Amino acid sequence: MYRAPVDEIAFTLKHVCGLDDLQKSASHQDLADDLVDAILSEAGRFAAEEIAPLNAVADQHGTPLADGKVTTPPGWRELYRAWIEGGWNGLTASPEAGGQGLPMMLSAAALEMWNSGSMAFAIGPTLTMGAVDALEKHASPDIKAKYLEKLVSGEWMGTMNLTEPQAGSDLNALKARAERNEDGTYRIFGQKIFITYGEHDLTDNIIHMVLARLPDAPAGTKGISLFLVPKFLVNDNGSLGKRNDVRAAGVEHKMGIHGSPTCTMVYGDEGGATGWLIGEENRGLACMFTMMNNARLAVGIQGLGVAERAYQHALNYAVERRQGKAPGDKGEGMSPIARHPDIKRMLLAMKARTQVARAICYACAHAIDMANVAEDDTARRFWSERASLLTPIAKAIPTDFGVEVASLGIQIHGGMGFIEETGAAQFLRDARIAPIYEGTNGIQSIDLVMRKLPMSDGAHVKGFIAELRAIADEVKASNRPEFGATAERLAASLRDLEEATDYMLTAQAEGRIADALSGATPYLRVAGLALGGALLAKGALRSAGEPAARLADRTLLARNFCETTLGETAGLKSDILLSAQSIQAFDAEAQAS
Amino acid sequence: MYRAPVDEIAFTLKHVCGLDDLQKSASHQDLADDLVDAILSEAGRFAAEEIAPLNAVADQHGTPLADGKVTTPPGWRELYRAWIEGGWNGLTASPEAGGQGLPMMLSAAALEMWNSGSMAFAIGPTLTMGAVDALEKHASPDIKAKYLEKLVSGEWMGTMNLTEPQAGSDLNALKARAERNEDGTYRIFGQKIFITYGEHDLTDNIIHMVLARLPDAPAGTKGISLFLVPKFLVNDNGSLGKRNDVRAAGVEHKMGIHGSPTCTMVYGDEGGATGWLIGEENRGLACMFTMMNNARLAVGIQGLGVAERAYQHALNYAVERRQGKAPGDKGEGMSPIARHPDIKRMLLAMKARTQVARAICYACAHAIDMANVAEDDTARRFWSERASLLTPIAKAIPTDFGVEVASLGIQIHGGMGFIEETGAAQFLRDARIAPIYEGTNGIQSIDLVMRKLPMSDGAHVKGFIAELRAIADEVKASNRPEFGATAERLAASLRDLEEATDYMLTAQAEGRIADALSGATPYLRVAGLALGGALLAKGALRSAGEPAARLADRTLLARNFCETTLGETAGLKSDILLSAQSIQAFDAEAQAS
Repeated sequence: MYRAPVDEIAFTLKHVCGLDDLQKSASHQDLADDLVDAILSEAGRFAAEEIAPLNAVADQHGTPLADGKVTTPPGWRELYRAWIEGGWNGLTASPEAGGQGLPMMLSAAALEMWNSGSMAFAIGPTLTMGAVDALEKHASPDIKAKYLEKLVSGEWMGTMNLTEPQAGSDLNALKARAERNEDGTYRIFGQKIFITYGEHDLTDNIIHMVLARLPDAPAGTKGISLFLVPKFLVNDNGSLGKRNDVRAAGVEHKMGIHGSPTCTMVYGDEGGATGWLIGEENRGLACMFTMMNNARLAVGIQGLGVAERAYQHALNYAVERRQGKAPGDKGEGMSPIARHPDIKRMLLAMKARTQVARAICYACAHAIDMANVAEDDTARRFWSERASLLTPIAKAIPTDFGVEVASLGIQIHGGMGFIEETGAAQFLRDARIAPIYEGTNGIQSIDLVMRKLPMSDGAHVKGFIAELRAIADEVKASNRPEFGATAERLAASLRDLEEATDYMLTAQAEGRIADALSGATPYLRVAGLALGGALLAKGALRSAGEPAARLADRTLLARNFCETTLGETAGLKSDILLSAQSIQAFDAEAQAS
Repeated sequence: MYRAPVDEIAFTLKHVCGLDDLQKSASHQDLADDLVDAILSEAGRFAAEEIAPLNAVADQHGTPLADGKVTTPPGWRELYRAWIEGGWNGLTASPEAGGQGLPMMLSAAALEMWNSGSMAFAIGPTLTMGAVDALEKHASPDIKAKYLEKLVSGEWMGTMNLTEPQAGSDLNALKARAERNEDGTYRIFGQKIFITYGEHDLTDNIIHMVLARLPDAPAGTKGISLFLVPKFLVNDNGSLGKRNDVRAAGVEHKMGIHGSPTCTMVYGDEGGATGWLIGEENRGLACMFTMMNNARLAVGIQGLGVAERAYQHALNYAVERRQGKAPGDKGEGMSPIARHPDIKRMLLAMKARTQVARAICYACAHAIDMANVAEDDTARRFWSERASLLTPIAKAIPTDFGVEVASLGIQIHGGMGFIEETGAAQFLRDARIAPIYEGTNGIQSIDLVMRKLPMSDGAHVKGFIAELRAIADEVKASNRPEFGATAERLAASLRDLEEATDYMLTAQAEGRIADALSGATPYLRVAGLALGGALLAKGALRSAGEPAARLADRTLLARNFCETTLGETAGLKSDILLSAQSIQAFDAEAQAS
């Protein structure tokens, strides 16, 4: 069972993450509050009633491959049809292509709920949206005319083909090749692995976005081009033509998201798959990054979605299950375990992490939207930098939290949590991929430290920290005893973040790259925790007009997170400052030999 | 592939955890160093060559139940036979019963390696050893004569039957019942769940140890008796008689340890299973605790065993897999990922946690052994208290670390980590049960805070902290720059532990039970981390006579752990002191409604 937390989502969008900034913009002035509420409530209904009941079925069934065909789990074809008929696939695509032109913030909110329903289902359309994004920004008018509308409607789905066995995090090593045909098309050859929804039975055609090298391309990532390779060639009248030379050679047996077919794709076994260039030759990586940045946020939202579902699942169990007697419980018989302090500790940790993940994801979506609607260069630059700063945090923190929350959920279930039928284990098995794909969280940390902190000579990150400090000051000034030590703990974590930031900027300025890389992972966590604490506190501060119970809930949550989890930052800061030496002195290869 | 770390295990036993104390005792004076080395090396060989290759097979095959019979994975019957023929089953049992009478320290070391080989395999014999322990201490001479030798040799296996659907952590709710027969035997009725190796094909007979209530028993845990219920009745000449009225009604579909059959056992469907009382009527829980305390350490060792295996697996991958270019790497082409600082950070975290888990488990085994060999009341009391103090820590920290290490191992493998064939995912799926069973880690924390800290009016835990402080002082006095900030960080964590201990003792003295319970989990972690840091440092200090590379390795590991992970304790201490208020104010039931 899943209940879409529509009210909390709406509050977070409106009062924590600045949806009103967008509503004031020329691009989204029609986005009235009641339209927002209607979209959220309908997306939530679809997630809870249509998607969520099929999540466990898909886990058990998987996506078997036979004779080159992948069968999706029972009920998924009907689910997908209902999904596209609801118009959900084109939320953010431009109205010209048949989309609804809604901001990323709303799409992020809807995506959260769909991922709570089923991460394995929601990931498919996410990739199609990435393909739409790349085509809208980089494809020729002919290509757009042929593919865009059907991808936006969801009649066809899209994929991203980057990874090869030897080229995972490092795309320099990419080997798939493309040869020019006389007619301007290309012949594509090579093997791609880990291709999500590379083959399936949900749509009649599948549009693969494939990275490959031309024969005369420069080495490394500057010699990579992006091609569109449809499963079935498309005639000029839009009907399907002959089968292209691409096939699924295998489906992976994974720890989780069993409903999502992860395929090995083979291109060009029979003379070459026909492909069309997207953007310019050798500039494919730039096109791919368009898709990847939004995909990083989308993966963060997977962590968030699974966390919310796992929290609800554990909460329901804790209220029903009775064992022992909680201190002070005067009721009959055994207490619901939800009354035991140690269980409450875990539930609070789950709830706070989920809400932090939500606020960080929506804040990142807000920055992306603001960059898109900006009307002058200063604003565009500011919000682009903010989106760049937040993207690695919004990918890594919610996905780490997804794993932590799902694992706590298992713990609350006790022995039942280890039994698959209970459902709690699936959340951990599903969530565990999110810190890995779309750039591992280690790579996100490196991106944050090496590429994002130095933006505007460090001025952007410092301004960001100052904004967070203003929230801590506001908590302090509010003088509400219910906040406990929130203001002090938040201020302390922000000092840790500031100190760690200075260390990172100095290390890079002095060319101590290995020092910066050694501390990147704890640095990202400090930044994410401090940001999370500030956003929870902001939620409590902005709840003044809300019902008293909501205000009390949000204050309690901010307080608990700041008094418990934020305590990590002091240790992490020391870690960043101290551990580079031992890490660099560690000769892992000598250990193995 | 698994290589038994026999040298590190031997060093930890001898130079960190005090095996020499035992060798000086009257009970174990024959335990020469070369005998220790021979046992370790042969146990390691068996684990690496015989057990480890069957771990993945068992994961895939599981233990299907059909017509009341459970089939163990291919190769397991032969493996079990080789195991008992090697005499491994009776390591710690008394020589009178055919055992080898070895101390728990050696058994712990061997058990570590068997769990590295396969946790699902090693858990079976662990339960038999628990049954042996209970029978040796509490059974009548007749029962001993009939069952002990065959359980010690491993010809038969044993089980523990505690849990029922409504009685998990809280055994007060236990309902299984026993009725007296005229002949002094009992008829047992009821259903037990989560019974490890409750049914299988490894041995001809299975000896169930079952908790049940007599008709006139007092309510609660003071009315529980322990019964021996064999699968097949045993004739006076030792041959098997008729089938007893007990059967496996189901095998659970679990997240991990698929090779270990987890059964629902039904007693008395056809008139009552014949059982024999062990110990006195209504005193069953005391007998069961004999088994459970050692079982808690054994579960800690599962976490350790899986951690070591996951570390080796990730290390081997990191050395082979090449991606990108590590800073300062002057080699050709891509670097082994083992050279990237972020990967080295993770490998160090895995290695340090594994070694901490090892040292804590062996220290706990040492305390149990010392209590057993003590020749006067003072020593016996001291070491009993030490074993009591360390048992919850030795259960919880290594099992939490097992999960953390296995999860880091997946992360190091990147996308491959999520693919089941890689093997990394199995370690996390297997390890995830260990923080739950034999008393959840939350219950271990409550046991530590509520029952163990108050021992000798708090004097025991304070003496324990003083011992750890002496290690920090010794690090400082050593003046070795290679230790970095080890001494300072360790001293700081010990101050955190001291302050948190005072808080807990005061809270209990003032009757603020809910406050103590609210902070129990972070308290156990502070204690475990501080102990772990001290034991790593001790290892480095005692390596002075070892090869230079070993000294350098151990110093680096202690330093890295103290400079990174020990940083957690400051935040955890604040958590303990601050969070009780928000936890108690949290009304989880209101959240669910």
